[in-house]
Amino acid sequence: MNNLNVSIIGAGLAGSLLAIYLARRGMSVDVYEARGDMRKETVAAGRSINLALSDRGIAALREVGMDEYMLAEAVPMYGRMIHSPSGETKLLPYSGRKGEYINSISRGGLNIALMNEAEKYDNVRFHFDERCVGFDCETGTANFSSGKTVTADTVIATDGAGSAVRNAMLHGGVERFDFSQDWLEHGYKELHIPPGTGGSFLIEKNALHIWPRHKFMMIALPNFDGSFTCTLFLAHQVGNPSSSEGVSSPTDVLGRQDTLPNGRVSAEPAFDQLTDASAVLDFFDREFPDAVPLMPTLVEDFFHNPTGNLGTIKCFPWNAGGKALLLGDSAHAVVPFYGQGMNCAFEDVRVLDSLLSEPPAVASGYNLAPAQRNPTDWEAVFIDYGRLRKPNTDAIADMAEENFYEMRDATADPVFQRKRELETKLEQTYPDYFSKYSMVTFREDLPYATARAKGNAQDALLMKICAETPDSSNIELPDVMALIRKQR
Amino acid sequence: MNNLNVSIIGAGLAGSLLAIYLARRGMSVDVYEARGDMRKETVAAGRSINLALSDRGIAALREVGMDEYMLAEAVPMYGRMIHSPSGETKLLPYSGRKGEYINSISRGGLNIALMNEAEKYDNVRFHFDERCVGFDCETGTANFSSGKTVTADTVIATDGAGSAVRNAMLHGGVERFDFSQDWLEHGYKELHIPPGTGGSFLIEKNALHIWPRHKFMMIALPNFDGSFTCTLFLAHQVGNPSSSEGVSSPTDVLGRQDTLPNGRVSAEPAFDQLTDASAVLDFFDREFPDAVPLMPTLVEDFFHNPTGNLGTIKCFPWNAGGKALLLGDSAHAVVPFYGQGMNCAFEDVRVLDSLLSEPPAVASGYNLAPAQRNPTDWEAVFIDYGRLRKPNTDAIADMAEENFYEMRDATADPVFQRKRELETKLEQTYPDYFSKYSMVTFREDLPYATARAKGNAQDALLMKICAETPDSSNIELPDVMALIRKQR
Repeated sequence: MNNLNVSIIGAGLAGSLLAIYLARRGMSVDVYEARGDMRKETVAAGRSINLALSDRGIAALREVGMDEYMLAEAVPMYGRMIHSPSGETKLLPYSGRKGEYINSISRGGLNIALMNEAEKYDNVRFHFDERCVGFDCETGTANFSSGKTVTADTVIATDGAGSAVRNAMLHGGVERFDFSQDWLEHGYKELHIPPGTGGSFLIEKNALHIWPRHKFMMIALPNFDGSFTCTLFLAHQVGNPSSSEGVSSPTDVLGRQDTLPNGRVSAEPAFDQLTDASAVLDFFDREFPDAVPLMPTLVEDFFHNPTGNLGTIKCFPWNAGGKALLLGDSAHAVVPFYGQGMNCAFEDVRVLDSLLSEPPAVASGYNLAPAQRNPTDWEAVFIDYGRLRKPNTDAIADMAEENFYEMRDATADPVFQRKRELETKLEQTYPDYFSKYSMVTFREDLPYATARAKGNAQDALLMKICAETPDSSNIELPDVMALIRKQR
Repeated sequence: MNNLNVSIIGAGLAGSLLAIYLARRGMSVDVYEARGDMRKETVAAGRSINLALSDRGIAALREVGMDEYMLAEAVPMYGRMIHSPSGETKLLPYSGRKGEYINSISRGGLNIALMNEAEKYDNVRFHFDERCVGFDCETGTANFSSGKTVTADTVIATDGAGSAVRNAMLHGGVERFDFSQDWLEHGYKELHIPPGTGGSFLIEKNALHIWPRHKFMMIALPNFDGSFTCTLFLAHQVGNPSSSEGVSSPTDVLGRQDTLPNGRVSAEPAFDQLTDASAVLDFFDREFPDAVPLMPTLVEDFFHNPTGNLGTIKCFPWNAGGKALLLGDSAHAVVPFYGQGMNCAFEDVRVLDSLLSEPPAVASGYNLAPAQRNPTDWEAVFIDYGRLRKPNTDAIADMAEENFYEMRDATADPVFQRKRELETKLEQTYPDYFSKYSMVTFREDLPYATARAKGNAQDALLMKICAETPDSSNIELPDVMALIRKQR
């Protein structure tokens, strides 16, 4: 594949990892990045500071020998630490088994490591300050704001949720292009807990902290230096008049008879209420009293940091013939509540790479010449990739939205807490028991769609048992496990 | 409201009717149409030749005195005439009551009549060959391909499924703009049955004809001149590799173990198989043998007429502050299978107009100053409009897709046919019985979302009864009606 030239649009996490994978196959790889080189200059991030790296992402790093290097810089998180409004805490482990945990890692540190690794290959070139502003799906020519135009053998767009290549597909480049973008009524804001003296951690180091408050929540992930990055998830607007989530139920067709539910005024807090320091402090003192003393720059951070939006993007097909493929967030941006955005994008890279391998991973009856014999048949590779991957990225997108409601709401619910305790015991007792969370997070051998289907059936069963049995010590594990095995 | 200037983008059915409504309120109205004046030149339509006008559309025409004039040019259709593969026919009436029928009307004739009516007002001006290519959601300035720029008090975009104003909202004009476009794997092609001698109708005049064939179907609507316009609905591609509808169920994450369902080869017919005259004739002779003798230009029409796409577009919010509002297909394009696209757009106009009226049709607790006292508060009007209308346009969009499956599939099913017979008897016996179809089509007083909710509950009950009772003469009407009334 030495004579193949691939353009990658976007040197974020997915694009940088993809460059390594393609370079290892001997392809000539040019990576075009809209921003400057984050290794040389401070680049406005606009993205989360740390991320939860888990098994799907680790598996993709492992294939290029980057897993141990990266985990050495990560902070293991063994469970969710739930903070009640009165400041009590309770740890809900992610798994009852050793070795099943997630890892808080610096986005910037990981991105830089991947770029450095990619640049070890002579056949990889990074081009910074090159923003893709247009793409011709017929000719495969990409246009950059610098005026540069590039036509490679194919283009792989890892240019994120606002992908210029996807916009070209949407607006006439690909016929019958299915597309959706859906925004949550909630936004997010990043805040900060600094390290204690000597780089110590002021709250439990090895946990993902959650302050669940039903209609909103705050979380915190540890950083390697002893600090925590907090994220507040909160509605943008009180009563939310501009969102379709808040749209009224039916009335008379001319609106003459019934009342409009979801009137504009509501008691729920929202970003648009927190307009000055005293409103912010009142809100935090009331809702997160144990966190406030740990956040000396709370008010400054609150007004300095932007309020971000949370959206889900789905589309299909992901390819424009053999000229371009969307991969990662450009194809399927998800909300962050399952901690799988990066892990899913890394799995994308691993799946795509597998299709470039000797006999490609496709079934009989599907007449694709093996890619090694026909390495330039990008369209066939891209179609296979889309068919394999789409049900799984849809599944994680849906689970990520559902997990928002679990995190802000269910983690404070006694039945849910009993269910997590029961699951921990099952995992400690039965090697073949995996919670839905474990299947998604720790089972890189299971596609997301399979994890979702099995996990939903299992969850329904366990919630029923826990709702009916207030004292979980009365639940007979062998009986429960027999029911679960019967579901399979 | 004499000093208000409104720009309408698009002089199609919705835009032309809206111009009349706004002109009656004394507003100054400029209508910008991308194509030429269809009254003076042959304009490439690209849209269906005839449409089913029903009560929601008629109600909107009635308010501007256009209903009787238009119905005089329409052909009443009292039911669905089902054509079996062997050529037998069976009429399924739309209602058991007199006066509940739909009307086949010429799109062009109706559009011309509405433009002529609008032009009777001195305060309405049409501008043809003015294609809107951009819109600034901040300033409200619309740009046209002619180079013209226009800034009115507000813009109402009736520029259809490909709306330029909506694209401006999507790409940065409106924050957190929810948007989706979803394409059916089926396309459509219009065909023709000419009149018989002396303008006679060669098949039943007063019916909507359907040839349901499970995975595809043909329909025919009568024209005033004795001809019929047929539409073939058929998959674009065999096995449909590019659609997400055909995407495989989960496999191993690298695709190594399982087989891909929905392989590329399938026995279903599709447009991509009908590439020459003999393939087209073979297909029609096999599937629609009774229609072929009536279609002397079948092969020419098939290869001359384009194959259209069928998509659903949803978005929200529909307004950019008070600067612009999406209305009709630009806000909610639907598939044609409920015959409600135009009727819904006309209802949009009627609902919007009602909000410009004395005390506006909004509920207590929703602090909007009445529009008459504050006629320039377009943003408040548009927000009310969106909240009232969105649940209903979502409902008709979903019902239109669902009705595709009913028309091509269920109309050939004996249980479904018994259910329609039972419903006809109920409608003949009980003035308060309305089928779901009747609630959608003949009850302009019921919002679409209400019709959908009530209709679905009622359908589930009746299908259960008809499945359990093979001989419908054994069904006791009073017992059934008692069950239905209990549902309310």
